[in-house]
Amino acid sequence: MSGFGDASARVVPTDTGAAAEARSLHDRLTKPPGSLGRLEDAGVQLCAIARTCPPPVPETAAVAVFAGDHGVLAEGISPWPQAVTAQMVANFGSGGAAVNVLAGHVGADVVVVDVGVASELGDIPGLRRAKVRPGTANLAKEPAMTRAEAERALDVGAQLAAELVQDGHRCLLTGDMGIGNTTPSAALISILCSRSPAEVTGRGTGIDDERMHRKVEIVARAIERARDEGANEPVDLLASVGGLEIAALAGYIVGGAGARVPVLLDGVIASAAALVAAAIVPETVGYMVAGHRSTEPGATAALDHLGLVPLLDLGLRLGEGTGACLALPVLQAAAKVLRDMATFDSAGVSEGPAEGISP
Amino acid sequence: MSGFGDASARVVPTDTGAAAEARSLHDRLTKPPGSLGRLEDAGVQLCAIARTCPPPVPETAAVAVFAGDHGVLAEGISPWPQAVTAQMVANFGSGGAAVNVLAGHVGADVVVVDVGVASELGDIPGLRRAKVRPGTANLAKEPAMTRAEAERALDVGAQLAAELVQDGHRCLLTGDMGIGNTTPSAALISILCSRSPAEVTGRGTGIDDERMHRKVEIVARAIERARDEGANEPVDLLASVGGLEIAALAGYIVGGAGARVPVLLDGVIASAAALVAAAIVPETVGYMVAGHRSTEPGATAALDHLGLVPLLDLGLRLGEGTGACLALPVLQAAAKVLRDMATFDSAGVSEGPAEGISP
Repeated sequence: MSGFGDASARVVPTDTGAAAEARSLHDRLTKPPGSLGRLEDAGVQLCAIARTCPPPVPETAAVAVFAGDHGVLAEGISPWPQAVTAQMVANFGSGGAAVNVLAGHVGADVVVVDVGVASELGDIPGLRRAKVRPGTANLAKEPAMTRAEAERALDVGAQLAAELVQDGHRCLLTGDMGIGNTTPSAALISILCSRSPAEVTGRGTGIDDERMHRKVEIVARAIERARDEGANEPVDLLASVGGLEIAALAGYIVGGAGARVPVLLDGVIASAAALVAAAIVPETVGYMVAGHRSTEPGATAALDHLGLVPLLDLGLRLGEGTGACLALPVLQAAAKVLRDMATFDSAGVSEGPAEGISP
Repeated sequence: MSGFGDASARVVPTDTGAAAEARSLHDRLTKPPGSLGRLEDAGVQLCAIARTCPPPVPETAAVAVFAGDHGVLAEGISPWPQAVTAQMVANFGSGGAAVNVLAGHVGADVVVVDVGVASELGDIPGLRRAKVRPGTANLAKEPAMTRAEAERALDVGAQLAAELVQDGHRCLLTGDMGIGNTTPSAALISILCSRSPAEVTGRGTGIDDERMHRKVEIVARAIERARDEGANEPVDLLASVGGLEIAALAGYIVGGAGARVPVLLDGVIASAAALVAAAIVPETVGYMVAGHRSTEPGATAALDHLGLVPLLDLGLRLGEGTGACLALPVLQAAAKVLRDMATFDSAGVSEGPAEGISP
């Protein structure tokens, strides 16, 4: 089995030669150069990842929904009870959640992984059981988990990514479930992007001003504690102020990059995990595609830091992988444009002098 | 056959009762209220259009690509030769254009209509021949077409919409092809949105500063001429400064609204046609869904005027219906969420007190 260490070692920079070939092909296709905007950029990236132009179309995709609970919920940072994490995992199992509907719509497989739900889960169809611990500790007061636990969660994610690619999936989508998980995400984003807690903490599922004020304070307190405890290195930070599903996602992202497939990021939880992945293995960034711009301010801070421009901006703040699912058809379209469009030559279309756009 | 007049008479306001039912259902589905952002708004609109909740999923869709030429090309407003319109129609016929690839990707049928290409077109598979005249006159100097010609083009669009819905299509996408057609679009948008030519004229397929300056002047001159000639009423304006494909699109939009299906708008050409449609039959706006935000400034001006928020913003400026095709899966997803997601009750998920969001 391939753990996080193996996956990290396998990540190579994406191929600039294939990217250049894609840019050149785009200029010969029957359309004004650049007129497909970010769809062209996405196609170029897919070529760089696959090291060939045109790129394979990522028809077979999977969304991994990593679930975990958060001790910090004791601080009252969310109005939702912790039990909802387990209830939603059951809902994923019976196909009634948003991610089931949207993944089904775009033809992606859903894989749900218990990497740290607080309660013991009953019989849930298709659930992967990889619980590292039953929820994190309260990061406002102590490290969320030990470094060894963070490493085990990284392994869970990396192993699943390797397995999914082994099974023929050509695009990995990130998903998450964990009541309270925008709080550790904000803490990680604040530290890794050098932004203040107030700048990157959002209202999550929807909280009032009073609770929001408390949430920012908790994030600030967790960051201060982590600093006092000397957590600097990315895995130590992940253990100190992160979450089990965030750690698994970081492993999954590196695993996808190691297997040379695009990793389509969902919202703010995925963005926090992506920052951790990039801090450990910088070359993973070339394999990341930002699915959408979450309404959480931390998501935008993280994507800016990573230099990623999201494909969609629909005002989503649900998580689960929903935004990544909605973005999948756009990514597939980017590949098909390069694979299937005619060139000016092949179609007998006159090429306009593209003034002001091309050199 | 159903012409534009019949279609106009059939347009009724969308159903506010079904919309309210959809909003209420959205708040009971297993997700924080409002957390699917604009996907929720789109679902509500689909219910209002179909007059039922949940709405039918618009699985079967068609994109009509209306093609026409523009006499104003003589003024040097585009670097592309007029022959490219006909060459691209041939490219549509052989399946090599961007709209073919993207429509194929999302499962939409492509229907190409010659409503005003300047040259005689040869044998092109699937082409609908409905040429009203071989290109418009030069709108910088004289009316683009007569009022009777504009009315015939409106009929062409309305009839095709009725036929497509009759054949089982449940969503109509707009498409266009016409070298030079951002110029009449800018003129119509300037007049109908009360914006200056400089504000709403864009670089189209990509032109340099000098040509851009000339283009703004041409738009201003056309508007002045139309005013001098007393063109005020929307069909007169369409005849004076419009285009044959723009007129057909306006008819198609009203035809879709009259048949009570959503009309998914592409870019700036569609936006100009939508303004005309709304000026003639205001209730059509309820049936319009803006597929994407074109980079053309006129598109944003028109969408703002119509009160439409686009689903996608990918920096597209190609036309043909490409942006509408990319948006179709998002619209379908909006319907499936309402149809297929579990409610808190049905899934046994605790409902969090959604503070600060719900009343």
